[in-house]
Amino acid sequence: MPDGERPPGLGGGVDGGVHRLPLRIYYEDTDFSGAVYHASYLRFLERGRTEFLRGAGIDQSALHAGGEALHFAVRRLLIDYHRPARMDDVVVVETRAGAIRGASLHLAQRILREDEPIATAEVLVAAIVRGKPARLPDRLRSALSGALPAS
Amino acid sequence: MPDGERPPGLGGGVDGGVHRLPLRIYYEDTDFSGAVYHASYLRFLERGRTEFLRGAGIDQSALHAGGEALHFAVRRLLIDYHRPARMDDVVVVETRAGAIRGASLHLAQRILREDEPIATAEVLVAAIVRGKPARLPDRLRSALSGALPAS
Amino acid sequence: MPDGERPPGLGGGVDGGVHRLPLRIYYEDTDFSGAVYHASYLRFLERGRTEFLRGAGIDQSALHAGGEALHFAVRRLLIDYHRPARMDDVVVVETRAGAIRGASLHLAQRILREDEPIATAEVLVAAIVRGKPARLPDRLRSALSGALPAS
Amino acid sequence: MPDGERPPGLGGGVDGGVHRLPLRIYYEDTDFSGAVYHASYLRFLERGRTEFLRGAGIDQSALHAGGEALHFAVRRLLIDYHRPARMDDVVVVETRAGAIRGASLHLAQRILREDEPIATAEVLVAAIVRGKPARLPDRLRSALSGALPAS
Repeated sequence: MPDGERPPGLGGGVDGGVHRLPLRIYYEDTDFSGAVYHASYLRFLERGRTEFLRGAGIDQSALHAGGEALHFAVRRLLIDYHRPARMDDVVVVETRAGAIRGASLHLAQRILREDEPIATAEVLVAAIVRGKPARLPDRLRSALSGALPAS
Repeated sequence: MPDGERPPGLGGGVDGGVHRLPLRIYYEDTDFSGAVYHASYLRFLERGRTEFLRGAGIDQSALHAGGEALHFAVRRLLIDYHRPARMDDVVVVETRAGAIRGASLHLAQRILREDEPIATAEVLVAAIVRGKPARLPDRLRSALSGALPAS
Repeated sequence: MPDGERPPGLGGGVDGGVHRLPLRIYYEDTDFSGAVYHASYLRFLERGRTEFLRGAGIDQSALHAGGEALHFAVRRLLIDYHRPARMDDVVVVETRAGAIRGASLHLAQRILREDEPIATAEVLVAAIVRGKPARLPDRLRSALSGALPAS
Repeated sequence: MPDGERPPGLGGGVDGGVHRLPLRIYYEDTDFSGAVYHASYLRFLERGRTEFLRGAGIDQSALHAGGEALHFAVRRLLIDYHRPARMDDVVVVETRAGAIRGASLHLAQRILREDEPIATAEVLVAAIVRGKPARLPDRLRSALSGALPAS
């Protein structure tokens, strides 16, 4: 499906420096406690980061397959769980770019159900080429800077 | 997020008796072979069935939490894998209702990337109440019949 | 951890042409219905096939990384779900080799809890090199034949 | 399978106040970058905590199903990723009990491949009864205290 034809909303959107991705909770995301399995939120956060990067013009599969063979790896992640999300809920993943260093990027993320915070996370992501940390290419750096809120 | 506010496209839609749910392939769906992990397609098919049921007015978490405590369980599933889907692809899950029996429902499903079939599945789903097969409630039965193509 | 040091039981074992892999059900495997999520069984079956192949002397990551860059892809899978497995259960995945064709391999698999069948599956697996079906190398073919029950 | 019959090694063991659970990396754990998907490590850590609790005499499914209907929920998790684990690796999840508060428990966890640290985590877990934090029952408290290294 060419991007022009993909359904509105599939990749979320940016407003005021915050990328928002809505998503639905399915069976696969829950566990026998009745709520969402704690590791499923990391999958949601990663979808948010991927769509944030895509919105900033960064296509990870093209980077990976292309001459750059660059991908992003999570180096550190802190997550606080505030309330359980449940089957059939619609939640929104918010992603804000933080500091950009030579080879890494800080992101602040939240998962909300309507106005209730479900989880909050701080994520440090590194650019990797052939298994080693690599300086973020300048075009990524400027694309990401454009995604930062004006200061 | 009330349903009226949820982004268009999140739950897909029905056209000519076929429910179509678009979805994006993320890191979480792939494996080290470079393509989508074979069990991930079952998660996509289940999302399609859930949205198909929701589109027919059936809310599984309400059924489960409500007095009915009904949920659906897969009894038999046959899947043919035709082509690999890959990171960043947008695929569409198609779901068609087949025969409705006393306590079970046949569904025919496909996963497509543009016009290419990625996977095809036949799924037999049973209604379960307190761990045992249960006759599909009449209102579900008529909702599902409405989702069948006219014959 | 060198193979000689790994804990007994981690990879299961073969007896009478049947490979048996015991495994424990965890939170991650369940869903809000209280039982194991239907796609989790495919993960268990794949663990069984991987250990079956390892037991026959076939190391998939070495094949993939080595000059052969060969991996196995599931082409078709039929699964019948008989009873739900639950959190904390220990189940055993049984794997039997069936017919070996030029580029593909049939496997018959079962998941048991003590003597109760939980799920039964028929799986067709193909050897893939650089994205295309490839004849199974002779050493794999003879290793797999050795895993077949005498006829 | 009664516990007496389950294969040695399936649940790991305790030595010097540290619970160690060996596990194998499978296809399901990896992503298209070639290494283990970052959220998969949370599944491994949770397996380690479950086996640590089981080793201390705490059976989560019995707690959940029994009159207590108690389960554990992760409240906060910090994870540092040091090195990628890969398909077919055997890793060991180490779990050490930290401070026990009224309704919560700190755990320090590591994932190692031979002597190399793959990931390090600090996890805060809360006891939950009917959706609310609940004081850890005394028998759990004393079981957990027994799992602490002598000080």
